[in-house]
Amino acid sequence: MSKVIADITMSLDGFVTARDPDAEHGLGVGGEVLHRWVFEGNAGDQRILDAAVQTGAVIMGRNLFDIVDGPDGWNDEMGYGAEVAAKPPVFVVTHHAPDRVRLVDQMHIVTDGLASALRQARAAAGDKPVVIMGGGATINAALSAGVVDELVLHVAPVVLGSGTPLFGDGLAVSLELVASASTPFAQHLTYRVLPA
Amino acid sequence: MSKVIADITMSLDGFVTARDPDAEHGLGVGGEVLHRWVFEGNAGDQRILDAAVQTGAVIMGRNLFDIVDGPDGWNDEMGYGAEVAAKPPVFVVTHHAPDRVRLVDQMHIVTDGLASALRQARAAAGDKPVVIMGGGATINAALSAGVVDELVLHVAPVVLGSGTPLFGDGLAVSLELVASASTPFAQHLTYRVLPA
Repeated sequence: MSKVIADITMSLDGFVTARDPDAEHGLGVGGEVLHRWVFEGNAGDQRILDAAVQTGAVIMGRNLFDIVDGPDGWNDEMGYGAEVAAKPPVFVVTHHAPDRVRLVDQMHIVTDGLASALRQARAAAGDKPVVIMGGGATINAALSAGVVDELVLHVAPVVLGSGTPLFGDGLAVSLELVASASTPFAQHLTYRVLPA
Repeated sequence: MSKVIADITMSLDGFVTARDPDAEHGLGVGGEVLHRWVFEGNAGDQRILDAAVQTGAVIMGRNLFDIVDGPDGWNDEMGYGAEVAAKPPVFVVTHHAPDRVRLVDQMHIVTDGLASALRQARAAAGDKPVVIMGGGATINAALSAGVVDELVLHVAPVVLGSGTPLFGDGLAVSLELVASASTPFAQHLTYRVLPA
């Protein structure tokens, strides 16, 4: 069965965006520092990005969808799977379906919960991994539900002080570090999630 | 002049103790997982600990003092500098001097603030580093005051969900990763603090 990977970039103080994220500022105001490893990274960062082509299906929450499906969002050059012919399907967990979807070939709207999105994503992914790419609340919910096999964090060298938290609400998780790589713009950490 | 190093262990979600720390549970209830790298660590962890013998002086806050100077605290076998003949002096930042001090040869009580403790610690340290070893509030205050040259974090592979936070209160800091080492019980990260 597909491995379920939660994969996200955070600041050293656990924020996945800076304050006030919106369609124009997907990473919040001043949050670009989080993704320097993606856009200005070195060969080590590129190796991490290249691994994403193995992804069988993607899950994301509504806030993230509104950004990546928005006018300044993903396009043929940027976005998950942009560089491969067969882009992985994306399952969007939301309470209310959006009025319109721009990336209709890639996006699948799921209104009956994370478990349903996960079931559909697994079916689509075959043997390849399912990647939950955020946002913070969706990964938090997946960790709380105990459905995450691996937590992959890209820790940017910054303390933001405010923004969208990844953790919180008393979520407790035991982990085992299975891979680690340092680059100037991120400490890449791969943890296996241990049984509660 | 002495380099000022803030050095502390935290969970992946930024807690330096689990909930309800007290003299009996210095790391909080269930917080022992934070210091497995200290007590059950491998050669990589030991190298990190060995570097501590270079410390010229230590600064700590009152909560941490109450633990290390308490009946179950530091002794000849355990504690900062326990393994070297000349233990570094410790400057304790507190509003009110404690009624009694157990480790009278090592502890220096400072009641006129962090800047004063830093001044005294620098004078005592000579060319060796001054290490601010916690707790969270003291390191946070030192980072806020802009007096930290290096932030050394030992990130335990656990999300605690509650406890004593290291960051917070809007503290923002730009960092540069200068060293990193992975062991089963900690990701050791050394950051240079960049000018604000």
